[in-house]
Amino acid sequence: MKISRIDHLGIAVESIDEVLPYFENVLGLKCYAVEEVADQKVKTAFLKVGEVKLELLEPTSPESAIAKFMEKGGKGVHHVAFAIEDGVENALAECDAKGIRLIDKAPRAGAEQMNIAFLHPKSTASILTELCEPMNK
Amino acid sequence: MKISRIDHLGIAVESIDEVLPYFENVLGLKCYAVEEVADQKVKTAFLKVGEVKLELLEPTSPESAIAKFMEKGGKGVHHVAFAIEDGVENALAECDAKGIRLIDKAPRAGAEQMNIAFLHPKSTASILTELCEPMNK
Repeated sequence: MKISRIDHLGIAVESIDEVLPYFENVLGLKCYAVEEVADQKVKTAFLKVGEVKLELLEPTSPESAIAKFMEKGGKGVHHVAFAIEDGVENALAECDAKGIRLIDKAPRAGAEQMNIAFLHPKSTASILTELCEPMNK
Repeated sequence: MKISRIDHLGIAVESIDEVLPYFENVLGLKCYAVEEVADQKVKTAFLKVGEVKLELLEPTSPESAIAKFMEKGGKGVHHVAFAIEDGVENALAECDAKGIRLIDKAPRAGAEQMNIAFLHPKSTASILTELCEPMNK
């Protein structure tokens, strides 16, 4: 698998409105997009720092994975997403062959028109890990 | 404060030896340095992905902050470090003036010949946040 960079950090937040002033007025980053991902039951806000995006994730339902993560005491960085140059599907096959536990057996649609798939933290040094690539390359 | 990029992600691990094969043989990243930071009671291993470093942090004593983080159930990403272009000291003064809680009131020496200072997660969307710059610019 060929990773070109960290695409984004997924950050769990109770409220985008509450934390955005910190990111914009203290760190000096700019929020360039807000998107609701109904499928994942989250509202997302995107900021960019260098080549990496910060994806703030606010649950829109107690059923969302982000709400459950925070309920269990999870805070801050929820996942790390790597940009895959040679295809998420290939990368998943390679991971599977190398004994890595997969959450997604096939790529699915994520925010920002990306194909995404998650690896299980049991196999990835306890970091919930996303592999992603643009849908239309 | 002027942030140019994410300098590194600090990742808490029980054992560098145990997780390095995942980072090298599955993700295809290269470990380019191993360093012990006696002051912090950690052994560190550095890998690079795009412009961001991954800093694996293995405690060398139960007294280390990383050991305590893991004891409390902390896993994976321990902190996010931003590269500061216009001085960590200036950035701390700006944060202080804006009501951000500081862990370090002045920069101190970190791994890789960097000046570093931490902001308190209470003020930073629950992300333990490091500001850093090379000692000799």
